[in-house]
Amino acid sequence: MRALKNIWYMAAWAEEIQPGELFHRTLLEQHILFFRDGTGAVKAIGNRCPHRFAPLHLGKQVGDAVECRYHGLRFGADGQCVFNPQGNGAIPRAATVPAYATVERYGVVWIWMGDPDRANREVLPQFPILEPADYAVGHGYLKAKAHYELESDNIMDLSHIEFLHPLFSTEAVRRGKTESAQEGDIVWSKRFITDDTLPSFLEEIFGLEPGTPADRWLDCRWQAPALIELYSGATPTGRPREEGREAPSVHFFTPETERTTHYFYGMCCPRSSGGAMADEIARMQTEAVREPFMTEDLPVVEGQQQMIGDVDFWSLKPVLLPGDAGAGRARRVLERRIAAEEAAG
Amino acid sequence: MRALKNIWYMAAWAEEIQPGELFHRTLLEQHILFFRDGTGAVKAIGNRCPHRFAPLHLGKQVGDAVECRYHGLRFGADGQCVFNPQGNGAIPRAATVPAYATVERYGVVWIWMGDPDRANREVLPQFPILEPADYAVGHGYLKAKAHYELESDNIMDLSHIEFLHPLFSTEAVRRGKTESAQEGDIVWSKRFITDDTLPSFLEEIFGLEPGTPADRWLDCRWQAPALIELYSGATPTGRPREEGREAPSVHFFTPETERTTHYFYGMCCPRSSGGAMADEIARMQTEAVREPFMTEDLPVVEGQQQMIGDVDFWSLKPVLLPGDAGAGRARRVLERRIAAEEAAG
Amino acid sequence: MRALKNIWYMAAWAEEIQPGELFHRTLLEQHILFFRDGTGAVKAIGNRCPHRFAPLHLGKQVGDAVECRYHGLRFGADGQCVFNPQGNGAIPRAATVPAYATVERYGVVWIWMGDPDRANREVLPQFPILEPADYAVGHGYLKAKAHYELESDNIMDLSHIEFLHPLFSTEAVRRGKTESAQEGDIVWSKRFITDDTLPSFLEEIFGLEPGTPADRWLDCRWQAPALIELYSGATPTGRPREEGREAPSVHFFTPETERTTHYFYGMCCPRSSGGAMADEIARMQTEAVREPFMTEDLPVVEGQQQMIGDVDFWSLKPVLLPGDAGAGRARRVLERRIAAEEAAG
Repeated sequence: MRALKNIWYMAAWAEEIQPGELFHRTLLEQHILFFRDGTGAVKAIGNRCPHRFAPLHLGKQVGDAVECRYHGLRFGADGQCVFNPQGNGAIPRAATVPAYATVERYGVVWIWMGDPDRANREVLPQFPILEPADYAVGHGYLKAKAHYELESDNIMDLSHIEFLHPLFSTEAVRRGKTESAQEGDIVWSKRFITDDTLPSFLEEIFGLEPGTPADRWLDCRWQAPALIELYSGATPTGRPREEGREAPSVHFFTPETERTTHYFYGMCCPRSSGGAMADEIARMQTEAVREPFMTEDLPVVEGQQQMIGDVDFWSLKPVLLPGDAGAGRARRVLERRIAAEEAAG
Repeated sequence: MRALKNIWYMAAWAEEIQPGELFHRTLLEQHILFFRDGTGAVKAIGNRCPHRFAPLHLGKQVGDAVECRYHGLRFGADGQCVFNPQGNGAIPRAATVPAYATVERYGVVWIWMGDPDRANREVLPQFPILEPADYAVGHGYLKAKAHYELESDNIMDLSHIEFLHPLFSTEAVRRGKTESAQEGDIVWSKRFITDDTLPSFLEEIFGLEPGTPADRWLDCRWQAPALIELYSGATPTGRPREEGREAPSVHFFTPETERTTHYFYGMCCPRSSGGAMADEIARMQTEAVREPFMTEDLPVVEGQQQMIGDVDFWSLKPVLLPGDAGAGRARRVLERRIAAEEAAG
Repeated sequence: MRALKNIWYMAAWAEEIQPGELFHRTLLEQHILFFRDGTGAVKAIGNRCPHRFAPLHLGKQVGDAVECRYHGLRFGADGQCVFNPQGNGAIPRAATVPAYATVERYGVVWIWMGDPDRANREVLPQFPILEPADYAVGHGYLKAKAHYELESDNIMDLSHIEFLHPLFSTEAVRRGKTESAQEGDIVWSKRFITDDTLPSFLEEIFGLEPGTPADRWLDCRWQAPALIELYSGATPTGRPREEGREAPSVHFFTPETERTTHYFYGMCCPRSSGGAMADEIARMQTEAVREPFMTEDLPVVEGQQQMIGDVDFWSLKPVLLPGDAGAGRARRVLERRIAAEEAAG
């Protein structure tokens, strides 16, 4: 499939990959096997044995290698065959699987989907709201039957929350002022709503007395390939942001295939406000949004994919509204970078 | 898919589209949304929002417009966007969906699948057996996983009833005389069976004493795209038709996709004979044929489609029997008209 | 699909085709109908009626012919229409379905998938271990979602039993000496393991005292299209083969489609050793291997197919190990013969 390769994608939440267990996931149509070596580091290699193409995830981990269930070949974290139980035990030079660079950070397993030699830990994005010392973060996951850019569009234009999500919204959303901005390849899509009355779920999150007229912001920060931080907060109307409380969240999308997406999301609770309860709060909020994500967003996003079918998104000439500016910029940045990567070979 | 466009298709039974409710159906591979306006008139528009391509049927009706569930755009019955809740509310000129001409008549919602400007109410076929003053009509519906012409073939050659349908048939069917005729683009496929003994289900319908030797006719009248009236009746052997009773029925087929078909059927009970019971009789007879249609016809017709697979029907060189004459004529009329429409651009 | 045509394939176990019952199976992507004529002989014809393409298996057998459920045409074992109940009963010359040559031997129904005129009973392979007078044979069947050559590879390289099948194996398998040989188009893939201790399931089969150090052989004899005899036996270590006991088995594969396979297998118990219990022993052993075949082999073989996807097996450049020699030879024989058949037109 067409996608940016030389960049970090989110592969999994760290706890999805347990010591001694093989974990497999398809990313960008590549079958990948994950496991932890003796030091606990996550390793990722191709899931297809080069001998007879059996899926390696049916096998087992032996030391720092993975043993194929079919004929017992073992592969190390660098993708090289390290043991051949058959015959004289000679290891054919070609007995290798791809090895992927990975980094575990922020409770997230990141994977570099392009040339491993170009994998650069330095370009791993920084996410202050995922810093464990400062934030507790819930870990949510959904699989969507839709192209991943339909998912990032969904977050980048939050005008939909008024129509889709009674839990998060009020009629005032539509009155919101929107603004998009670009800093290099970072795209902001911001929404600011004044003098609103929030649903009680949000009043609680933002620490507002029931019925307090409030000013609310919803600022999305996108970066390639489809990593979005959402800064959502509120103050009593007219008060400066510094006095308000923010409930940030992350929304990271990784294509599984051309038409299916891994959606990783997490609510982030500042330890400064959550205190001893921060982890529990983040977990509960993340759990709370699962229901609307599943029953409200998913049918729409998967419905979009069905209505689009096989054709190119742009070929259908989508009508553009002002609120689409941010999503449009993100799509253009991504398109430019993919084209550049393709041009570079 | 290849199909005649500038013609009326049956879209639904009238009661399938209830006031205040959105109804959607795919016809000729086009996703269509139906609703009733304030006057009760059925309206049909494209089901794909032109903004982000969400399916409009997930939304709701607001006055005479449909509101998209995703971002709140509203579309009127003419397909124009009539309300944009976002930003300054400006409505982009391109914010339109296709609008389809519809007519509600005979308890049927008809839709014109081609150029709406050419939609002509005058060319809507007349069906005397669907006139509410004269006939009570049952409303049946099935979905078949087969090309719609396999379905119209099924009705146009009723020799199969002897083999498929114990309820409707006797061995005498095969002795029937068949005849096909054409009046312009109307195709008749007629079958006449003399001196038969009918199953009790039919004796009751035709008002014959049990065991009466009977003459029976089964006359199908096809017109494009796939609208068939079936005039089925009987008299005691040797008596003129005028003395007999007729149980007409309609069989209207509309392609959903190249390989799936909406099958609308209805038994028609003359009010002259059915009296106060006519509606109940029509309903019960229509209900009674559902079982054989589902368990006897459907496996064969869907089996045909499976055996045909992806290839063109004619490329398999079907063996032609005399009873196929009517179905063959219907196929040729349709082919000629589709070709003419394509040639006209 | 690409496959050898002018050769005998296994179509079914004899008892799958019962007198008076229609049996249908897809072989090499051809839909085939089987039935027994009045003499009990198995007949095979195309399952698609040439009239309207209804599947004949929905119909019924009438004498030595099959009646189409749709319009009552009947077809004899030679594929000719023998009866037309419609109209004047004339039988169109083109009303034929393909007829396939079949032979019933060894409790197996064999079918010739190419030119029936070239069907040659003389080239039907001989299988001494299926001779009813000498062996009792269990009849097993599985359907696999994988190309049939992945299945024959599976048998031709039995090094996998150590990793997949605790029931059949010990660690000594990997120490086995392998050898492949070719006699014309017959390919042998042999494995010999000395000084092993066998699992109790095998000790019982081979008549060894518990814990006896044993020498074991696993010799596979392949012939086109994918018919494998597996000669598995053991003796106390150092004793000549003649003193041991052998538990042969057959593994016959017939493609259903490019990616699905009929797998017929059977354990063969020599009447000389099994005596009055031979049939029961063969039945029980065949039943016993169903579980490992289903739960151990099948996930791997179907997993291979998923990992291979749509691409050609060789294009993925499988790494070759010494144990693959036999399977590789078999693949090359088959490829050469298919190419020759294609070249011959």
